[in-house]
Amino acid sequence: MDLPVFFAPDLLTDAPAYTMNEDTSKYCIQVLRHEKGDKVLLADGRGHKFTTEITDDNRKKCVVKILSVETMPAPERSLRIAIAFTKNASRIEWFLEKATEIGIQTIIPLVSQRTEKEKIKAERLQNILVSAMLQSQQFYLPELQEPQAFDKLVKNNRDAQRLIAHCLPEQKSPLQETMQPGKDTLILIGPEGDFTPDEIKLALEQGFIPVSLGNTRLRTETAGMVAVTLMNTI
Amino acid sequence: MDLPVFFAPDLLTDAPAYTMNEDTSKYCIQVLRHEKGDKVLLADGRGHKFTTEITDDNRKKCVVKILSVETMPAPERSLRIAIAFTKNASRIEWFLEKATEIGIQTIIPLVSQRTEKEKIKAERLQNILVSAMLQSQQFYLPELQEPQAFDKLVKNNRDAQRLIAHCLPEQKSPLQETMQPGKDTLILIGPEGDFTPDEIKLALEQGFIPVSLGNTRLRTETAGMVAVTLMNTI
Repeated sequence: MDLPVFFAPDLLTDAPAYTMNEDTSKYCIQVLRHEKGDKVLLADGRGHKFTTEITDDNRKKCVVKILSVETMPAPERSLRIAIAFTKNASRIEWFLEKATEIGIQTIIPLVSQRTEKEKIKAERLQNILVSAMLQSQQFYLPELQEPQAFDKLVKNNRDAQRLIAHCLPEQKSPLQETMQPGKDTLILIGPEGDFTPDEIKLALEQGFIPVSLGNTRLRTETAGMVAVTLMNTI
Repeated sequence: MDLPVFFAPDLLTDAPAYTMNEDTSKYCIQVLRHEKGDKVLLADGRGHKFTTEITDDNRKKCVVKILSVETMPAPERSLRIAIAFTKNASRIEWFLEKATEIGIQTIIPLVSQRTEKEKIKAERLQNILVSAMLQSQQFYLPELQEPQAFDKLVKNNRDAQRLIAHCLPEQKSPLQETMQPGKDTLILIGPEGDFTPDEIKLALEQGFIPVSLGNTRLRTETAGMVAVTLMNTI
């Protein structure tokens, strides 16, 4: 049975001990009923896996002794997705959870002409990423960036491979046939109602490659999830 | 702009006209504000696309005249998934929506030793499938079967290609490298806590091929969605 993993964002790799914050302590001691002497894992979200032992099972300030630290292998290439957030918060929150589970390094809320939602609840979304990282036993926390305007992002980013998924019937190939392995990759996913023709034109001028995510019409959050799934197979 | 699609499960292909049920009429006339003379599409869920015109915009009994009927191309091979339903209903309902959007022909609630939920709300789930079919502009409604016991399903099914996704560290290859194109395929997705070793042994004895869905630990509904996504690319 795997040891449970808890989040310790402020834990330094040379620290001899660590005190969990109140929420994590409550979850570890009160909810999961861990006791003094139990071994638990800590993740700092930066790739470090700490094996620890509970030395004080205080339900508000649980203290652990660090037994060992392991640096987990980092992803070989960076997968980034810029996606228009949906008006319905639960749909994009669901996407954040699933993208984290499946594997993504960076998520950029994309503000395009038809984007329905431009403000995000950063703290709430951050908690969703942390939960999904811990639940899927990963040790690198995806980066949720500030919302970015479509034009700015398209003109300024430096990813080695740039893809745009749109619904126009123009010439485009399936993502899995287009994307090249081993390259840092950014993909753009549009809002309900798609990118505007002008936005697509600008992206293509800037060297973005149009890709298809399949033969059916997908909701924004579904398209994002399909893109993350396919990128991880390449 | 695409015409809106409404569900007409009992519409015959040679019918000259059709009266929507009360819910659909209300949605079409009251919510979407369609009026007499508007053109709308109807889907029977069996591959027929009816182009129609509203002749009576009654909000309880909307009547349309059938202008034309088109039979949409059927999937070239059947993709079926047997998945252990999660205790949390919203997670499996989310899976049903996404699987329908992305493309699946049959969904079988799988009752394995560690399955947490064996009863399903068939009518509620059916409505989710219908909404997702219409929303993604498809015309074939996936079949949601009765829950089936793992042993019975594994021993009795006749799919040309049979896959099982499990978490044991045994020899297995990624789905996208294992699955052969063009074959009717059934994949088994286990519950939280995975299939038991005995269940996996039985499946392998019955000719199921073990596959991996990636390098991270996925929740049941995420694994199902990833499997449906990958199967549709092959």
